[in-house]
Amino acid sequence: MTRRRDTDTRGRAIRVGLDVGGTKTDAVAVGLDGEILARVRRPTGWGDDAVIASILDSVAALAEEGGFVASAIRSVGVGIPGLVEPGTGRVLHAVNLGVESLDIEARAGSRLQVPVTVENDVKAAALGAAALRRDTATMAYLNLGTGVAAGIVADGRIWRGARGTAGEVGHLSVDPAGRLCGCGQRGCVETLCGGGALAKAWGRPGALPVRDIFDASETGDPVATALRADLARGAAAAVRILVLSVDVETVVIGGGLTALGERLHTDIVATLRREAEGSAFMRSLRLDERIELLPAGSPAAALGAALVGAAEFAPVPDKEIVTHG
Amino acid sequence: MTRRRDTDTRGRAIRVGLDVGGTKTDAVAVGLDGEILARVRRPTGWGDDAVIASILDSVAALAEEGGFVASAIRSVGVGIPGLVEPGTGRVLHAVNLGVESLDIEARAGSRLQVPVTVENDVKAAALGAAALRRDTATMAYLNLGTGVAAGIVADGRIWRGARGTAGEVGHLSVDPAGRLCGCGQRGCVETLCGGGALAKAWGRPGALPVRDIFDASETGDPVATALRADLARGAAAAVRILVLSVDVETVVIGGGLTALGERLHTDIVATLRREAEGSAFMRSLRLDERIELLPAGSPAAALGAALVGAAEFAPVPDKEIVTHG
Repeated sequence: MTRRRDTDTRGRAIRVGLDVGGTKTDAVAVGLDGEILARVRRPTGWGDDAVIASILDSVAALAEEGGFVASAIRSVGVGIPGLVEPGTGRVLHAVNLGVESLDIEARAGSRLQVPVTVENDVKAAALGAAALRRDTATMAYLNLGTGVAAGIVADGRIWRGARGTAGEVGHLSVDPAGRLCGCGQRGCVETLCGGGALAKAWGRPGALPVRDIFDASETGDPVATALRADLARGAAAAVRILVLSVDVETVVIGGGLTALGERLHTDIVATLRREAEGSAFMRSLRLDERIELLPAGSPAAALGAALVGAAEFAPVPDKEIVTHG
Repeated sequence: MTRRRDTDTRGRAIRVGLDVGGTKTDAVAVGLDGEILARVRRPTGWGDDAVIASILDSVAALAEEGGFVASAIRSVGVGIPGLVEPGTGRVLHAVNLGVESLDIEARAGSRLQVPVTVENDVKAAALGAAALRRDTATMAYLNLGTGVAAGIVADGRIWRGARGTAGEVGHLSVDPAGRLCGCGQRGCVETLCGGGALAKAWGRPGALPVRDIFDASETGDPVATALRADLARGAAAAVRILVLSVDVETVVIGGGLTALGERLHTDIVATLRREAEGSAFMRSLRLDERIELLPAGSPAAALGAALVGAAEFAPVPDKEIVTHG
């Protein structure tokens, strides 16, 4: 249980983490004890140059908010919704950001004059969620957003697997008669509980289609009721897959759809219970007690990015993070 | 690349591994370089006392076959089809052996006067298969027997997960309209590719029902053709689950059903290809190239048991195993 309070050899103490989302960037400054010293949210720009500018802007705003100078920053980690090319600092196919291929580590690093590390946003959020829970057991973070994917943390580290498809449970089919998925398969988990697939199946106008589905289900709309049930069925299937393959202790559920809050949590718990009713084996796993929703406004993704950034250069007390955010 | 040629402090060099199956026990003696020095197969008895006697008998036969004295044995590992109670040497619910609860480590250890370690047979086989392949990447061993389960090996070690359900892919449902599983759920992977479920669905007399299904399918029998397709569909689903959750590089398929040999392998490869046809993402994973069948007569399970036994007491060069078996 050693705590590292050291600065680096150049006296720099602060690790910055950015969660670069499709509309906003969440930024945190993490201090020596792992506490969150400052946090800002800024809009994210569209396209290569604007994404780099958003990163630089967020770091500057964070320094101002936290009252520290840029030269006190020892590392910057960037979580981003795209494929991070292994062994490079390049992000590919970040379609929600208008980015096809962008070397964030080199471009932002040369401007900031500190080491920059990029990581897929779901993997970063998984590490941050584990740190916030002070979780030493193997856990998964299941992201229910436009798409569906999970990040896995074992022994305080992101589980990477062999080829970068660890946690891609959104594209496992659980129903050969299910809806066609954007990936080309039928009945994928994502067709049931992905926000994009649900909005498409709902097909009515509205800024928040999944919230509309929940609201309409409460007035008895049969289409909405069926889609709401699909969402819980898909999330329950993802939880079972993560427990009966990787064997995670806990599944923390986050992502845009968790703005639904308690209604979503209640649905998933009830579905896990109902679907285990006929099976002593499944009941024995008590999956309904092993899920939790990431609280609204959690800094998990940005915090995880800070830890990813720091881990590339120095040991970090992942399991002892204290937040005052 | 260090090789350990050392004996232990008492000059003992030989690690014994036993794969205690429902009808026979496969036993190997492993030397200092990881090579298989001797191998014997003996019948397995039924019930607590007979299982212990089978273990003792196999070790004695192995010493005779290998021309070594029992005092040269430094460890004995036992792979067994049952639940190994964590932290104890006790095996639970080994129904194919007539064993409800048996402390194999204590009972066999006191008779053999060497440390005895028990492990679930699928997990032991996974470790043995990884050693035989000299596999340093994360891999899975998928056992298609009466039931279906996988063992996962990462960094040369058995992946255990949080609660002992790692690799239990047989009880993930992939079809809500599928057959009822023995576990109480519907459409589990095991209902498609478990030997027990296939024999039950076939429902005709015969000592080797799955072989009968394959033979009958070749004469155009429609029930047999459908069940044969189910077997490949279930195995393909298990492979996809293992790659899109744990992200294993390779899935080695073993177990009783692999006696079907090339016919089974061809079916699974064709199914993986056909089911990926509509999905650029799935095609990019090239799953058809990432599966292999364990060769008939492979000593993987017994070898893995020897490695499990040895690992409890001394480092073992898992990745440098050489077999002359």
